Amino acid sequence: MPYELFYWPTIQGRGEFIRLALEEAGVDYIDVARRRGRGMGVAAMMKLMEAPAAHPAFAPPFLRVDGELIAHTANILDWLGPRLKLAPANAQARRWTHQLQLSVTDFLVEVHDTHHPIASALYYEEQKRESRRRARIFIEQRIPKYLDYFEQVLESNPQGDRHMVGRSLTYVDLSMFQLIEGLRYAFPRAMAASESSWPRLVALHDAVAVRPRIAAYLKSKRRIAFNRDGIFRHYPELDL
Amino acid sequence: MPYELFYWPTIQGRGEFIRLALEEAGVDYIDVARRRGRGMGVAAMMKLMEAPAAHPAFAPPFLRVDGELIAHTANILDWLGPRLKLAPANAQARRWTHQLQLSVTDFLVEVHDTHHPIASALYYEEQKRESRRRARIFIEQRIPKYLDYFEQVLESNPQGDRHMVGRSLTYVDLSMFQLIEGLRYAFPRAMAASESSWPRLVALHDAVAVRPRIAAYLKSKRRIAFNRDGIFRHYPELDL
Repeated sequence: MPYELFYWPTIQGRGEFIRLALEEAGVDYIDVARRRGRGMGVAAMMKLMEAPAAHPAFAPPFLRVDGELIAHTANILDWLGPRLKLAPANAQARRWTHQLQLSVTDFLVEVHDTHHPIASALYYEEQKRESRRRARIFIEQRIPKYLDYFEQVLESNPQGDRHMVGRSLTYVDLSMFQLIEGLRYAFPRAMAASESSWPRLVALHDAVAVRPRIAAYLKSKRRIAFNRDGIFRHYPELDL
Repeated sequence: MPYELFYWPTIQGRGEFIRLALEEAGVDYIDVARRRGRGMGVAAMMKLMEAPAAHPAFAPPFLRVDGELIAHTANILDWLGPRLKLAPANAQARRWTHQLQLSVTDFLVEVHDTHHPIASALYYEEQKRESRRRARIFIEQRIPKYLDYFEQVLESNPQGDRHMVGRSLTYVDLSMFQLIEGLRYAFPRAMAASESSWPRLVALHDAVAVRPRIAAYLKSKRRIAFNRDGIFRHYPELDL
């Protein structure tokens, strides 16, 4: 049975962190809401979310495997990690990997709220003034706070600074790639001005980008382009 | 060795979800930043955060056990759960418990941002206008969105609606207690007007409150009172 991923079909969003792991592993998966036909599409995703279930999901993304629904990006990656050989075998190291992904989760909320500081239910245009205030402080303080931390994790990895955890690729490395990609798209001037502060993260980003399966994925139609519906959005007025 | 919890000493905050689990289990723990003396206090917490470490924490709370640092509330609870007998033994059910706690995590960010929609680094008074806009929509849309979901989880629990998971108490039940407490403190008018929509959650809250160890804890000095430095804050102008 292929993995069934349920996520919004027109954005990278949180689902992208899972897509990257599935793509790197080269496993069979169905991106349900992006397919057409019986039991596919956004309608199928919504139907599944609203159906009575033992373990209902609060929101996409969620994964269906053998009838079990698993939700929350970091939780899905923690589950997939060992199965895709993208997490350490050791339980303590796996918990550390998950802990790092939970910091990614927190950061993504802050990225999203640069363009939606008042409410997700309102349009950006309805909270533009507040977005400007929030984005300015986000660029000044929060990007460095998180990226300094992740850089330090690379630097202090006893097994070398090429990976976040241990000496081989994990899903958190893929997530670092995606964070750098997203920040460059959303805040190109801010990133150009400051990303030399995070040389190890940039090197990790570059190393992930040329992995054969990731490179093929990024060139494929399966990779949705960044756009103004996702978490990372480019509004020049919010950049440096 | 007692568990060592590191968290801000003057607020309930995210640390409270861990304190409640430790208190319910009746285990020995040291709330390090609240103690005085050698190796104690906020200074000790900051020192530990800044010291070189294999697994540095991004932010409090974190727990130290046998030299290992574990951070992120939901991750700590996932680790503590089986040890404190506050999580199911079965791996799938434990993952589901963790998944629910991750929705609590998301909700807490939204609660916090009702009084800090622009930046944590600014005072509430500097973002009061934006807070009013955010809190209005939070009360109208987000409280019902989350509490309807948690109520539905109770309702659809195949083992009965007295617990979130299975037939016995887990740390997520304690978290539900804390959410209801916090929302009642922060938004008393909004909660009075709407909490009858969530009878199972309120019943769970009440059942947790009278558990002997929790009741004793709530009366003790160990329970920090809600205040205007925490996640749940009462500003009448943000309430209904």
